[in-house]
Amino acid sequence: LTERSAEGEYPSAAIVSVGDELLLGHTVNTNGSWLAGRLSGLGLHVVHQITTRDHPSEIRDGVSRALDLAENVFVTGGLGPTPDDLTRDAVAELLGLPLETDSHLLERIRDRSRSLAVAKPPPGVERMALVPSGATVIANPHGAAPGLLVETGSKLLALLPGIPREMRDVFAPGMEAFLLKRLSGRLQPVLHRMVHTAGIPESRLAERIEEALGSDRGPVSLAYLPHAGGVRVRLSVRAWDTKKDADAWLDRAEARLAAVLGPYRYEARSGHLAEAVGEALRASGRMLAVAESCTGGLISKLITDQAGSSAYFLGGVVAYANSVKVGVLGVPESVLDEKGAVSEEVALAMARGVSDRFGSGAGIGVTGVAGPTGGTEDKPAGTVWYAAVLDGVARARRARFPGDREAVRTRAGWAAMLLLLQMLEET
Amino acid sequence: LTERSAEGEYPSAAIVSVGDELLLGHTVNTNGSWLAGRLSGLGLHVVHQITTRDHPSEIRDGVSRALDLAENVFVTGGLGPTPDDLTRDAVAELLGLPLETDSHLLERIRDRSRSLAVAKPPPGVERMALVPSGATVIANPHGAAPGLLVETGSKLLALLPGIPREMRDVFAPGMEAFLLKRLSGRLQPVLHRMVHTAGIPESRLAERIEEALGSDRGPVSLAYLPHAGGVRVRLSVRAWDTKKDADAWLDRAEARLAAVLGPYRYEARSGHLAEAVGEALRASGRMLAVAESCTGGLISKLITDQAGSSAYFLGGVVAYANSVKVGVLGVPESVLDEKGAVSEEVALAMARGVSDRFGSGAGIGVTGVAGPTGGTEDKPAGTVWYAAVLDGVARARRARFPGDREAVRTRAGWAAMLLLLQMLEET
Repeated sequence: LTERSAEGEYPSAAIVSVGDELLLGHTVNTNGSWLAGRLSGLGLHVVHQITTRDHPSEIRDGVSRALDLAENVFVTGGLGPTPDDLTRDAVAELLGLPLETDSHLLERIRDRSRSLAVAKPPPGVERMALVPSGATVIANPHGAAPGLLVETGSKLLALLPGIPREMRDVFAPGMEAFLLKRLSGRLQPVLHRMVHTAGIPESRLAERIEEALGSDRGPVSLAYLPHAGGVRVRLSVRAWDTKKDADAWLDRAEARLAAVLGPYRYEARSGHLAEAVGEALRASGRMLAVAESCTGGLISKLITDQAGSSAYFLGGVVAYANSVKVGVLGVPESVLDEKGAVSEEVALAMARGVSDRFGSGAGIGVTGVAGPTGGTEDKPAGTVWYAAVLDGVARARRARFPGDREAVRTRAGWAAMLLLLQMLEET
Repeated sequence: LTERSAEGEYPSAAIVSVGDELLLGHTVNTNGSWLAGRLSGLGLHVVHQITTRDHPSEIRDGVSRALDLAENVFVTGGLGPTPDDLTRDAVAELLGLPLETDSHLLERIRDRSRSLAVAKPPPGVERMALVPSGATVIANPHGAAPGLLVETGSKLLALLPGIPREMRDVFAPGMEAFLLKRLSGRLQPVLHRMVHTAGIPESRLAERIEEALGSDRGPVSLAYLPHAGGVRVRLSVRAWDTKKDADAWLDRAEARLAAVLGPYRYEARSGHLAEAVGEALRASGRMLAVAESCTGGLISKLITDQAGSSAYFLGGVVAYANSVKVGVLGVPESVLDEKGAVSEEVALAMARGVSDRFGSGAGIGVTGVAGPTGGTEDKPAGTVWYAAVLDGVARARRARFPGDREAVRTRAGWAAMLLLLQMLEET
């Protein structure tokens, strides 16, 4: 149940995912990988994962098997209000525990119904207040289905809702705090540093980093985690001795990366480039306005994903049709005719136009061919011109982004934000 | 091993995914869902899925358990050339079969090395020509690791490479053809219909549907699949007799749902509401313009996620600051002062303003408090006014959406699109 190694014993974990939709292939099990990553990061050894259907006996069998294989078992899904949500009952039966109404939960469910102005809560909803006798309840900030922790013998059984956002926010910080306390002294946490990069392909990034670190990297291991907008580089050390040693190795590696990554690196607690752009705008005292064609609102959306963005964001224009580029942003028709909508001149005129029109110190303009249609031999799908302007001084770049429509749009949006960030950092 | 029901017996399947990266959370198990979807579509019952680490005994245990639970077992991963590729050996040991060199495979591996101009094949590569005695080999069009089929007693054990593209192209058509032949006459494909809904909470939706269908639903089973913007309802029937009967039951259930779901139901191949809105705009011959405050570009982004949206989308204004609402959209300052930015009057003025300014037949306006900050007692976080206008005729609605910033923004965007869709369908 525990894994023995030179460094000691690590508590084991298994994950049980409940849901017909997973075994029908209608839903990808992203909960499983998220949870595995978090548990591994805390220092648990995830040894097994099981997916079962929404059948009481199969849920019981799956959980029972997981309890045989690991000390800590995490079950996701099947805690909602509908008749196919069976996890709560199956687990209570497996452990021989009665289900009892948690009055606090019931009150919350009724409050929630009232605040949503629901005259009468639908029938299944109050089932979500039933918990196995003795369970610890972890509140769900987004919904009625709570997290539940049941200690059974030397084992811990944790139940989590299946909706990804709810699962994540029930796990951390509530359930995580419980785990850290219960397993205190037995966890060898893995320390991570995340280095955020954008605007450089993974293979080129890896080449630079491997050269900079060489073989003298001590216990630091690396993982390259590409996502839609860039590549995160995770530096990890298992804190085998004292946290101080681990931190010193990580500091050293991080400094070497900073030295070779230059403008491709950005800092953001959330990992989102839009957060870094927001912080830089805030520090510079400038407001931003955005003009988008092929990205179609994506950049504005990413900027306003950040709470409090009204402190530095005025707004934007989605100039999808040329009539909007001309009529609202003031792009000269002659430029559109001569250079085409996807051109340096139009990207610059859009960035200048929106910051003039909105009266902002900073502006972005993006125009391109998102694809799959609309490409020409000269400007194939993926061709994008993007520009940024700061106090009237503008810079434009051209790129050809690989991938499908979504990938091109995301990469174009990140590239334009990265250009603005670089210009803000130079001033 | 086979699932017995009134309608007969169906072959069962289980999936075993092998790989440390899955249990460390570094990789999402997309192979599992892809394979589950394909097997279900063929008419197999996928009853279980297991993920194990790259350890020989754990692979053996996982495969052995899967063989207990299902008639057909599909194992992905661990067939490559590196020392942590252990599936081949673990399975041979479990079944007591010797590994033998397949001369055809070996030849292919050597050809491949030559064609890739590899001077000397790396050490592990020729291991990939080893197959359990008696196995059927399915060629891998992209790589050296083949698919392998082993019949053991009444069971079938299939091994597939772990790289997604290789796994998919080994499964179909080669392995699929083998399965169809082996299981011929016993496969009863499952028919699905997906009903898309938005603007109604899951619990209330379930209440309406359960009441409408009652117990007289024949073989139709239901699943509720909530996502960020709405809830999908999956209707399923195992085509136990003729496809015609199954279709008739599904038609009947779908008609009943349509009758009770009214405006909460929409049709879209992709499942995205923006697709349905686009189709309705296209059919009506109207162009759309969007004015967004709290959704910050999200609606424009969702509309332009659809390829070809330039046929019905002119663009939008993200009026995050009040100065943009006044200066660009023409919302009267007096209205902002008297009614506040989050009000019916401002939502209507935004929708009308953007459609006047852009010259569009259809317009949307959204203003609200996305949160977490910015709420008041009167207008708490989650309060949103949204409006749609068609040829000058406008309609506005108020809602209080639950959840965090992201949830409020997504729900507000979907609600506004749904309102426009209803108005388009009424005309």
